[in-house]
This record gives sequence, C-alpha cells and structure tokens, in this order.
Amino acid sequence: MASLIGDPIERELVTLHERLKHDYRGETSASIPTLEHADHRLFGLAVCTPDGYVSAAGDADVEFSVQSISKAFTYALALSDRGLESVHEHVGAEPSGEAFSAISLEEETGRPDNPMINAGALVTCALVSGADAHEKYERIHALMEACAGRSLGFDETVYEEEQGASDRNRALAHFMRSAGSLTDEVDPTMEVYLKQCSVLVSTRDLAVMGATLATGGVNPLTGDRVFSGTVARHVLTVMATCGMYDYSGEWLLTVGTPAKSGVSGGLITASPGQFGMGLFSPKLDARGNSVRAVAASQDLADRYELHALTLPGGNLPVVRESEERWPEYGAGVVAVQGDLVFASMRGVLSAIEAVLESSDRVLVLDLDRVTRVHQVGERILQGAIDRLEEHDHEVVIVDGARRGIVSGAVEVESLDEAREWCAAR
Amino acid sequence: MASLIGDPIERELVTLHERLKHDYRGETSASIPTLEHADHRLFGLAVCTPDGYVSAAGDADVEFSVQSISKAFTYALALSDRGLESVHEHVGAEPSGEAFSAISLEEETGRPDNPMINAGALVTCALVSGADAHEKYERIHALMEACAGRSLGFDETVYEEEQGASDRNRALAHFMRSAGSLTDEVDPTMEVYLKQCSVLVSTRDLAVMGATLATGGVNPLTGDRVFSGTVARHVLTVMATCGMYDYSGEWLLTVGTPAKSGVSGGLITASPGQFGMGLFSPKLDARGNSVRAVAASQDLADRYELHALTLPGGNLPVVRESEERWPEYGAGVVAVQGDLVFASMRGVLSAIEAVLESSDRVLVLDLDRVTRVHQVGERILQGAIDRLEEHDHEVVIVDGARRGIVSGAVEVESLDEAREWCAAR
Amino acid sequence: MASLIGDPIERELVTLHERLKHDYRGETSASIPTLEHADHRLFGLAVCTPDGYVSAAGDADVEFSVQSISKAFTYALALSDRGLESVHEHVGAEPSGEAFSAISLEEETGRPDNPMINAGALVTCALVSGADAHEKYERIHALMEACAGRSLGFDETVYEEEQGASDRNRALAHFMRSAGSLTDEVDPTMEVYLKQCSVLVSTRDLAVMGATLATGGVNPLTGDRVFSGTVARHVLTVMATCGMYDYSGEWLLTVGTPAKSGVSGGLITASPGQFGMGLFSPKLDARGNSVRAVAASQDLADRYELHALTLPGGNLPVVRESEERWPEYGAGVVAVQGDLVFASMRGVLSAIEAVLESSDRVLVLDLDRVTRVHQVGERILQGAIDRLEEHDHEVVIVDGARRGIVSGAVEVESLDEAREWCAAR
Amino acid sequence: MASLIGDPIERELVTLHERLKHDYRGETSASIPTLEHADHRLFGLAVCTPDGYVSAAGDADVEFSVQSISKAFTYALALSDRGLESVHEHVGAEPSGEAFSAISLEEETGRPDNPMINAGALVTCALVSGADAHEKYERIHALMEACAGRSLGFDETVYEEEQGASDRNRALAHFMRSAGSLTDEVDPTMEVYLKQCSVLVSTRDLAVMGATLATGGVNPLTGDRVFSGTVARHVLTVMATCGMYDYSGEWLLTVGTPAKSGVSGGLITASPGQFGMGLFSPKLDARGNSVRAVAASQDLADRYELHALTLPGGNLPVVRESEERWPEYGAGVVAVQGDLVFASMRGVLSAIEAVLESSDRVLVLDLDRVTRVHQVGERILQGAIDRLEEHDHEVVIVDGARRGIVSGAVEVESLDEAREWCAAR
Repeated sequence: MASLIGDPIERELVTLHERLKHDYRGETSASIPTLEHADHRLFGLAVCTPDGYVSAAGDADVEFSVQSISKAFTYALALSDRGLESVHEHVGAEPSGEAFSAISLEEETGRPDNPMINAGALVTCALVSGADAHEKYERIHALMEACAGRSLGFDETVYEEEQGASDRNRALAHFMRSAGSLTDEVDPTMEVYLKQCSVLVSTRDLAVMGATLATGGVNPLTGDRVFSGTVARHVLTVMATCGMYDYSGEWLLTVGTPAKSGVSGGLITASPGQFGMGLFSPKLDARGNSVRAVAASQDLADRYELHALTLPGGNLPVVRESEERWPEYGAGVVAVQGDLVFASMRGVLSAIEAVLESSDRVLVLDLDRVTRVHQVGERILQGAIDRLEEHDHEVVIVDGARRGIVSGAVEVESLDEAREWCAAR
Repeated sequence: MASLIGDPIERELVTLHERLKHDYRGETSASIPTLEHADHRLFGLAVCTPDGYVSAAGDADVEFSVQSISKAFTYALALSDRGLESVHEHVGAEPSGEAFSAISLEEETGRPDNPMINAGALVTCALVSGADAHEKYERIHALMEACAGRSLGFDETVYEEEQGASDRNRALAHFMRSAGSLTDEVDPTMEVYLKQCSVLVSTRDLAVMGATLATGGVNPLTGDRVFSGTVARHVLTVMATCGMYDYSGEWLLTVGTPAKSGVSGGLITASPGQFGMGLFSPKLDARGNSVRAVAASQDLADRYELHALTLPGGNLPVVRESEERWPEYGAGVVAVQGDLVFASMRGVLSAIEAVLESSDRVLVLDLDRVTRVHQVGERILQGAIDRLEEHDHEVVIVDGARRGIVSGAVEVESLDEAREWCAAR
Repeated sequence: MASLIGDPIERELVTLHERLKHDYRGETSASIPTLEHADHRLFGLAVCTPDGYVSAAGDADVEFSVQSISKAFTYALALSDRGLESVHEHVGAEPSGEAFSAISLEEETGRPDNPMINAGALVTCALVSGADAHEKYERIHALMEACAGRSLGFDETVYEEEQGASDRNRALAHFMRSAGSLTDEVDPTMEVYLKQCSVLVSTRDLAVMGATLATGGVNPLTGDRVFSGTVARHVLTVMATCGMYDYSGEWLLTVGTPAKSGVSGGLITASPGQFGMGLFSPKLDARGNSVRAVAASQDLADRYELHALTLPGGNLPVVRESEERWPEYGAGVVAVQGDLVFASMRGVLSAIEAVLESSDRVLVLDLDRVTRVHQVGERILQGAIDRLEEHDHEVVIVDGARRGIVSGAVEVESLDEAREWCAAR
Repeated sequence: MASLIGDPIERELVTLHERLKHDYRGETSASIPTLEHADHRLFGLAVCTPDGYVSAAGDADVEFSVQSISKAFTYALALSDRGLESVHEHVGAEPSGEAFSAISLEEETGRPDNPMINAGALVTCALVSGADAHEKYERIHALMEACAGRSLGFDETVYEEEQGASDRNRALAHFMRSAGSLTDEVDPTMEVYLKQCSVLVSTRDLAVMGATLATGGVNPLTGDRVFSGTVARHVLTVMATCGMYDYSGEWLLTVGTPAKSGVSGGLITASPGQFGMGLFSPKLDARGNSVRAVAASQDLADRYELHALTLPGGNLPVVRESEERWPEYGAGVVAVQGDLVFASMRGVLSAIEAVLESSDRVLVLDLDRVTRVHQVGERILQGAIDRLEEHDHEVVIVDGARRGIVSGAVEVESLDEAREWCAAR
C-alpha cells in the first residue's frame, strides 16, 4: 500500500509481533527432530482480505511443514470429490478429545470422530479420488497450491522423519480398517497422509489459503475457484468445532472464528467474507497449539470483534424512505438500504403494506442502496411480489447493479427511469 | 400482518407444519410420566425477528416444561452474575457425550464438560447469585420471563416427577462436590435445577427468547435489555458446539445456527441479528432431540441459508464513487456503501490513497450509504485518519445518521454541507 | 508359646517389623482428618492359624477404623442373606479400576463392577437383611465381631468425618439408583456403609478375621461358625481378583493370597486352611495400599511360599504298599497315604487293578494314613467300589478315624481287624 | 485302564458329553472363514493327571487351531527367557475388558493390561528370544510341543486367513510401538503372533498341556521339564484373573481354576498338583468363550470341588501321637502326619513343647507319615530345632523317604533305628 496512509492492519500486526515475540512459553513439538529443533524465535503473522491484499509481520515468509493444517484442505477435496453425505459415512462430525493412551472410534459406526483429528484425516486422505497414493497426494498438493496461489515445496526430511514416527497413525489406520471406516489400504493411505503433512507453506500462504475459505472457495489472488462455497462452509464449520484439539470450545468462546492448528506451530483461521489469517511460531502449549499464535489471535479477536457470532452493530434503518408517493401515477415508493436478510425483510414488507394500503396499484421498490441480497431476502421478497401480483399490483424494482433477484417485476436502473415507466404506463 | 401481502414466513411455517406433522418417528421421553404421556401429535413452529414480529404455525401456543432449554438462560444469568472467567473455573466449554453408563469430569480440573449438559447446568445453577435456592430460582425464572416478554407458569407435577427421577443428577451433583467443581450444597442446587426445568413455555415464547439472544440480549417485544451482548454471544457460542447433545456437530454442519433442545421436545435456535426460532414436538430421536423440530430446522436452514458461516452473497462494490474530485477546493471525495467490516476496509483505504495521490489536501468521506460500521472498520478508519492528519490532510465525514465514529474529522450531514465546508475553508 | 521353643513365626514377624519400620514411603490418606493425621509410625503384624494361635509383632493391638476391609465381611453377610446369584444380580464380579475423574457401571446391566469397590459395597450394604439402616449395620457389626472373636468399638469421629466427605459415595449411590442396581434409599444405605467403615479393629483382630475366612467360616478362637464354607470361598475369590485396587493383579502374581486393604492402612489376607494375616501401617502408596503392609506381605510370601497356586512339594508316593496280599483269604491290600484328591486317585485305582488282577475277590483298602479325603476322592473311589461290587468283589476299608466315606464297603479300624474279617469270611 | 474298574473319570466325561452335546447355544467365531464354518457339533473333553493318565470323551482327538490359548505358553516362554520383572516392564498384570470400539493402554506406562489379551500377547511374542520371527515362532511351537508331548501341526489356511483379518492386531502393535511397550518391529511380531495362533492341537493335547502347568512345568507324559515351577505359577496366576475375557471374575467364582479360552472354541484349565483339562466345542457365547466348554467346566467344578480356594476337608489331626516317651533314654517322641504347612506347624510345635517340658533332652520327630513338607514347614521346623539345640536338646528325625529337610538333626529311617540311636547315646 502506498506511502500516504500505509497499511494500518500491518501496523497492528507489527505492534503485536513486537509485543508477543517476548513470550517464550511452551515447547516445540517432540514428535520429529525437525520440529523439535525448529528455531523457536520464529514468529510470523499475516492477514489476507477477500480482495487479495496481504498484510504481514515478522517471519511471515519463512516456510515450515503444514502438518495438521493440511487436514482442512484434504477434507475440502474429499468433500468436493464425494459430497458431504458420502464422506460422513466414513468420518463423524463431532468434536472429541484424542487422549494419548487410548484410541477410540464411534461406538456403533466405527467412524473416527471428525476429519480434523488424525484418524479422521486418514479417512479423508483415503476418500480423495486418485488411482494411487501418488495421484491422491498430487491432487491434495495441487489443491493447497491453488489455495495459496503459488507453487508449494515439499520437505523430504520431514516426510522421512514422519515415516519413522508414524506408529500411532498406523495403529489408527489399521484400527479403522478393522472397523470398516477406512476402506483403502494402510500403506498408501499413510503415504498420502504423511506427504500432505510435509508440504511447505509460509505464514503468508496460510493467510491466502484462509482467505480462499473465507471467500467461499475462490482464491483472492488468482481469482480461481478452488472448491464450491458449500464445501468452504462445511470445512469452516468443522474447523469451528474441531480445529483446535481440546481447546476448540474455549477458542470459539474467546476468538470465535473457525481455525486449525498444526504441530509445527502454524495456525490458520478465517471469517466468511472477511479475512483469512495465518500465524506461526513453533512453541506449543499443552494442548498442542502455538502459544504465540493463540495469544495473537485472541488479541486481534478482541481488538477487531472478529467473533463469528458477533452481533453486527450500528445498523441503519432498513427502509430509507417509505412515505414517498407518486399519486399522479398511482404509485408508492419504498427505498431500502443495507442487507436483505431475514431480520430486515419484515420491515420491508411492513413498509410495502403501508405504502400500498391506499389505492396505489404500483409499487416502486428501490434497492439501489441495498448492499447484499441474501437468499432468504430473495425468497421473502418473491413471496410478497407474488401476492401483490395476485392482487393486481405491479412492481418496479430499481437497482443499478443487480438483475433478476425476483421474477414478475419490472426492472429499471434508476428512480428516474422508474418514474418514466410509471408515467408511460 | 395486514391482508395485502400477509406473512410469507408464516406461510412457509404453515406449509412446513402441514408436511412434517405426518412424521411419526421417535419416542416421547420416558424420563417422567408427564413427558412420556405427552400428546405426541403436538407440533409448533415460531420465528421472531429482531423487530419483534412473531410468525407461527401449528400448536405454537401450547405450553410445555422448558427442560434443558433452560440451561442456556441459567448459563446467561451465571455469566451476568459472575463473568466468563469465574464461571468457567467451574465448568468447561468443550463439547462431550454423556453416556448413560458412565459419569466423567475433566481429568485435571474436575469440571463438567460444558454448561449445556446436566452436570454443567447444575454448576451454573449453583453459580447464580442468590441467598438461597428460592432466590436463585426466582432470578432464573424472572430472566426467562424477561426473555419471553411475559409471565411464565410453573408445572408442579413435572417438578414433583423430576424430584422422583433425579438420582442421576444427584449423582452428578455429589460427584462434582467431591471434585470441587460444585461448591454449593446438593439439595438446594437440585431444587434450583429441577425447578428451572419445570418452567412452562410455549413455542412462541421460545422464538422470542431466541430473538433475545439474537439481538444481543434485548427482548424485541419489550425492548428491555435482559443481559449484555457479550453474554448473549457467549451463550450462543456454547449452544453452537454443545446444544444438541451428540448431534451438535452434525447439526452445525447441516443447520448451522446455535441451538438447544430439551427432553420435552422443545428446540430453540437463533442467529445473531437475524431471528430467534422456537420448535416443539414431543417425539425424540435416539440422541434426544425432537424429530420434527430437527427436520423443520434443516428444511428452513436449507431454504433460507440460515447457516451462521454462510458467505454473504451479492455484494455491492464497497466504494461507490472514488473518482469525484472538487479540485477547486483541493478536495477528493470517496463514497462508501455497505458495511465497514474487515473485508471492506482495504478497498476504502485504496480509494482514499488513489483520490489523495494528487495534491488534494482534503478528504471528503461519504458514509451516508454505509449500513453498518463494525468496530474493526472504526479502528482501521481511525488509523487512516490519524495518518492523514500527520501528513496535514483534513478529513470531512459525511453521514446523515451517525456521529463520532472516528475522532479528528469534521462531521457533516450531507455532501452539500461538505462542499460548503470545503468552500468556506 | 512356652519358653523352650518360643514362637518362630512371631520371631519372623518381629524381625520383619524391625526391618520395615524404617520404610517411610507413602502418605497417609487425605480423605478425612483422622486418617490424614494418623500416627504414621504405627506398624502392626499378626498371623492367626486355623487352630487359633495368634503370632504378632509391633503395634498389633492399636485400634483403627476398618474402612474398606469391612467390604469383605458385608459381602459375606449379603451372600449369607441372599445367596450368590441374587447378590450378583446387583453387583458384578469383575475386577476394575475406579478412576477419580469418572464413575462407571457395567454397560448393559448397570451393576457396579464388584463388591470390593465403593460402588459395589454400597450395593451389598443395601442387600444385607434388616428392617432399617440401624438393624443392617448392627448385623454387619455383629458379624465382624463374630469373625474377630471379641467386641469391636465404633469411632464416632471417623463416622462424622466420613459423613462430611461422602459426596463421591453419594454420587455412586444415586447413580446406581438411577441405573436400578441399588434398590434401597440412598441415605440409609450411606449410613450403613459409612458406619461399617468406622468399626474399630486391631491388627490382631484382622488376623483372626482372616483366619475365619481361612477356616471356611469358623472363628478359630471361639469355634463359632460365622458363615458357610461356600460363602468364605466366594469372599476369598473376589478378594483374590479385586481386593487390592489397581494393584490386584500384581499382588496376586507376587503374593498370591486373597487380600483386602483399607484406606486407614490395614490389610487382611488369608489362605484357605492355612492362616489369616493382619497388617497395619497408615502410609499408603499411590494405589491406596499400605506401603509397609504390602512390603511385609511380599516378604512373607516369598519366605513361606504362601502363594495360593503354589505346587505342593515333596510328595510321598500315594500308594504305600500295593504288593501285599493275603492269598490265604483271596484278598489284596492297597495302603494309601497323603490326600485323596484328583491327582492321587489315578494311582490308587491302578494299584487296586494291579492287586486284583489275580483272582483275589477281596480288596482291603487301608486309608489309615490318608490325611484328607476331598470330595473328588470320594466320588472316584465310590465309582470304583461300585464297579467292583458289580464284578462280585468285596471291599474292606481300613480307617482308624473316618467312617462313611463310601457306601457298599465294610469299614474296620485297623489292618488286624481287616485280616480278622477276611479270615472270618 | 484295565477292564475291572475302568476309568470312572472318563465315565463322567462321557456322561457329561452325552448331556451337553445337545446344547446348541452360541455362534462360531466370525473372525475368519475356517472358524466361522467349523463343524459346530464337535465337542471334546479330556483330563490329564500329574501321573500322565488321560481320560477323554467325545471328539478329543480332532485338531483345531489353538488360537488365544497359545498366549499362556508364549507368556511362559517370555518369562523363561526374560524373567518376571523384565516381562512386566512391557506388559501389565491387571485384568481388563477389551472393547471393540476402543483400544487403550495403561495410562502412565503405555503397557497393555495383561499377557492374555491380544495386545499383551503381541508384547510377549516380541519378548521371546530369537534372532528373527522364524526363530521366535519355532521356539514357541517347540515349547507347545514339549507341553503336549508330541509333534503339533500348523494350519496354513488359518494363518493366511488371520493375516487377512489382522488389522485390529496390527493397530494394537503400532499403538504399542508408539507408546514404547512394543520394542520389536510390527511385521515380524505379527508373523510370530499369527503363527502361534495357527498351531493345531487336540482337546487331548490341551489336557496334557494343562497338566504340564499343573505339575509346575514337567510334562507328565515325557517327564521333561518344559519351564520352571515359578514360571508355571506365574502363568496360572495370570490365567486365573485374565484368561476368560470379561467372564474371568465370574469364572473364578463358579469354577475357580486358572483357565484360558480361544476363539476356535478351545479351553484349557489346570489346578496345581491336580490336573490339566482340555475342552473344545466351536460355538461361543457373547464373551467369546465356548458355550459347552464353560458349561462342562462348571459341572465338573461343582461335582469335584475343583475350586483352587476350596478348603481341604476331612483333616486328620496333624500330631499322631505325642504322648510316647522313652524315659529310659531321656527321649520324647512326636509323630506327625499329613502336610507340614503353615496351618499344621503350630500343632507340631505345641506337641514338641509338651513332650519336652519334662526333662527329656532328646526329641524324636517321626515324619514318616508326613505327606508333603512345604517350604513354610521346613522354615518353622528349622527355627524350632535351632532353638532346641541352643537349649542343648538333640533332635532325631525319622523319615523313611526324605533326607535333609532340616539341618542340625540326626536322620534315621525308622522308629526302631531311632530307638537304637537313643540307646547307643
């Protein structure tokens, strides 16, 4: 961003980085040597907005193995390949702890609890389409690249170390095969799983990948659609309840955005329509989440009210002017602003009723200042227009930008045009 | 609603009621005689919008004991009385199954898993302020009435039956006392708990109570604030992950709004800023949720895209006109529309930069069509304005409705007034 | 014992006491103040043989609350009152850990795992016959006195402290009532349970009580039968697998005798037909067993080969003389020694066959040196005699001490008498 | 056995077979095709006494795969190779259920619960000495042959089917490797484990193998020592608490002898010094134990009082004559019969005191009728003799069969010889 204003978000990230880099709590993961001996001073922060702008601070371009964060993207690919129902025949959607001294599957179904734990990710690896392990992995790798908007490397050393430390995951795989939830062979499934964990990403990549989830599947840098909006929503939903291990519930209370962390110290979080965020610092807390990444997320969530269930504040009245009438044309005008969502439709309908309760036969509905038209808005509006038509009213929709929101109405670009239409009628 | 358009939402509810009333799957709860012998044909649906309008269908005015749905409101009261941190010293926030043949608490802390299961609700009952059981219960009852916007009855028979079937809950209470998470006596805690379960509500009440959560704590019928917006968000968050027993994860995938169900067949769900919904039908599925209430919720969620993580669609460009300049005054105009949220601020800043990159010293920022200004928007905007001031720029905010969003800017009501200000400068 | 030889067992106990009294590992139980502040230097040892002789060392006459050791005797009384099958409808017989952070019952039956854990003991308390809590407790107290052979006191302070620290047990009681395994009311059941724990015993008492189990239910001091041999065997069996908490399996490997420990530091162990042993020292290990009591038991088990599954060594041949014949009377003589058990009967039969394979028609079976005749010996012997009678052989049993072991044989007191009988035939 | 008396045990087995062969409850194991399609009418019974005589009935010579019964023998071999302590560093000794939907290890140690469940048997397979899987298996196979007293076959088909159905066990193996309790590689460990399960045995073999455990490790047919008495005792102890899956506790209550069952329908049980028993019938109950084998065992246990904790009945007085004196030689005579065990020593000592309380200086101790001298008897006797020597008494031991039981005493073969010794003194 240019020199005048600069990037206020980046300034916040820099300040935060400065403050939290002195937090030395936690331990690097002891799972494999590469992670254990990672430089624990590393600390990167990055945010990517749906328009593709990335703000970053610290070591945001240092690469590390993506580890469990890959689970979100493999789940996305499995959903794309198979559909929600078919995927969840093999893996549940319920949060669950995964204690070290026990392995458990759902009692009646034999499914692992959800796709964000190792057992569930092994299942989604197997569900990804592909002739063999190589092809499956290549497709997952390609999907992660498409989400990051650039080529991603692969850490051979990490992969070899993971192979040497894979007994617990092999145990899970065999256990699930015995229970019928894993239908593929164990060895190729392990290959796919461990390879996806060894893909190299930077904190900046995580921010873009998160933004791809936040935009409903379209990479904001490349403009390419990577997966459908429905898949993005499913992935974010499961991340919301299961992404942060045993801390998922508390994370949702205190931060409130879907997230997934990995044992290398990475963390991805995203808010639909708002942003993707990447964080990275190798030292983990007792639940396996990066100490600094969690602290930074909480700070930003507080500062920016990022919680997904935050009530939007400072609403304008939805109906801008409901009194206007053009009695000369037997027409009433209702001008709406903001979003056509569930909550606002009631007011719109009341205004329409009020305007038309006189003998006006024409409704001019000015949507020019409407920001977003949700599906629920369309449906309710359509219901109202159908009714008006039944009562022999005519409806003129004024919208400079949108067409075809509802059927059965005349569509014009401006109020002037609407008035002309009324006059010509 | 008046005769012309009628209530399209209610029409949908009526259609849905008509269709699902023939679904006879499930069983009434066998926990107490009153529930076991409830009229299983009953089926009520109601939706309440933040403006307080209730649409309803079926048996929406039949009263039934609120049962576990009360947990959400007792949790709200405990949060109001004690604060988040203090409450969660005694109860966790992680989802968990609660198998019939075992009782478990968090291993290290001895806390019950979350406030939406029986054990957790016993703890929140104890945490509600009050000299004794009577006062605690009266306060919970009063809060539920404040949320429903009317007086609520109490079912003596249900209470007595619950007392006679309370061994499992007494077991939980004593177990938690032994673990230190329940600090109150068992008998008064049980009294409070069983009484709150015996409060009588209708489906319509549930919709209004849900809307009170959806509005951030303000009853849309009475306009009274019942609890803070933060408390409402906490309650909705925990409902999102823990409200539907072992079905919570799947509910979130397929419906996607915070919810709580009860053994009497009631279900409450809410979407922040959008709606509260009540549903009721006595027959339960294997997980203890009302069969028809779940089916109806899924239908409505699909039809209306109610999922909390749904990406808002059909956005207008955030910057309405960025080219306009008043070179005669050395001023550039940026007109913004929609919401000032995280995602939109980047575009606003870019437009400001673009406008000011010539020698203009005055920025006229037209927020008149801005629907909502989120905190994140305020913060980023303030950061930009501070920078502009440092570079000796002046900022004029045009907003017909809002004042004081940022400091350090001239505030006017219209573009005309802004132009006058520039001219007079 | 008199001065000449003295009591070599007591000398061993004294030596052991001397050596282990310097073992200060472990902690007194923190469950109630009386136990927590017990004098941890106390250390008592006592052994009682089936003939009622007690050897003791250290603080064998100091009294302490019997705590969980009472469970063995309440179980004995419940078995006496109701029978094995009826008792185990309500409580299982399988070993199980009882973790602090969870309470569990058998999945399908809702029974507690076994009568040696708190949950199971609450059930057996309820199963003891008696009009009310007072009568039930009095009967348990009386049974313990009958086993100890003297009046036993009651510690009011301990009882009151237990009442104040009974939440976990009340939780268990309510949980079992909800599952149907506890059919009595919770309050009286708790009264019985906590009172039986508060009975005062000495280490010497434990030895005698153990000997009462070891003798099959007859108190070796008083000669009174307290319960049946079958009940004694059932109690010892359940003690063998469940008596030492999570250490039961290792105890059985290293010590090998049925045992029950208590939180006050007491330990009772017994070997059928051999001995009862009491041990006491207040400091407990991590599994809740007295550190010194366990150490002393292991030492004694090693030294004396007390393991219940130890192979008896140094056998004499079972058939003493099989060649002897009185051809003049057409008679063969088989003289048997040792025990008539499963293992020895084959040799007895072979000897009989060998002696009779000539034309002898009379079998003289000399059992005079037979130590014990087990039921299996009787049955097999009877089968053989029946066969011989079918083949027109006659059988003369020589036994100076026993009569009526088998039917269909002539019984005489000595070989001389047998010879006379043959001669007179 | 010869024609005259015949074999009364075999007659009982035949009768039992006749009666129980009409019990068609249960299902064959569905684990592999060979077991699922086994001829469920097969039913074999066999008992082997320590003298090597085998009584059998039904299909006692039909061969089947030994399955889990092999676990007892692999544990025996691991104990022989490594010792108790070293083996139990890697595997526990506590009973435990093994639910299908979960896999668990001991929380702190990561050990499987005991060597009789699959997880524990994998560990003992790995602990058996041998350069590779082949050698380890050959040693286990050889040990089973040594216990059976003949060459045992191997079922290639079963082994292949087991390999194809080994996912759950592979899961266990990998899980234990991840926890550190399994130190060997997974593939060779699986090979050893599945091969030992595929060894072919008959019911008669099981009886002999059981008898080898019952005799303390000596095969009664071949006379060869296969493992030590201590190993045999350890194996029997763990079988006693863990051998019958979730039925172990109830089995011990109702049958009372150490046992191990397998999924092919085999069951081995043994009583130290008494017998080994084999039973076989393919249909299993819900806990995985052969229906007919359990029923037959219970019948025999009731009929023959086989319970390991049964009180021996019909004791003779331990001291045969204590009054005899040879005042002419200053000698008193104490004649003992039965077993020198803990319980009997007290009476022996009292008799010695009584005899010597006059001025007699010589004790003649007649052990000629003593059946067995336990270690505890030796120790106590030695203590007494040491005391007598300190008081200048002399001791003459009369024993026709044994030498060197105690030191410091004159040993003679008969009372006559003792009298001569006294006279010559």
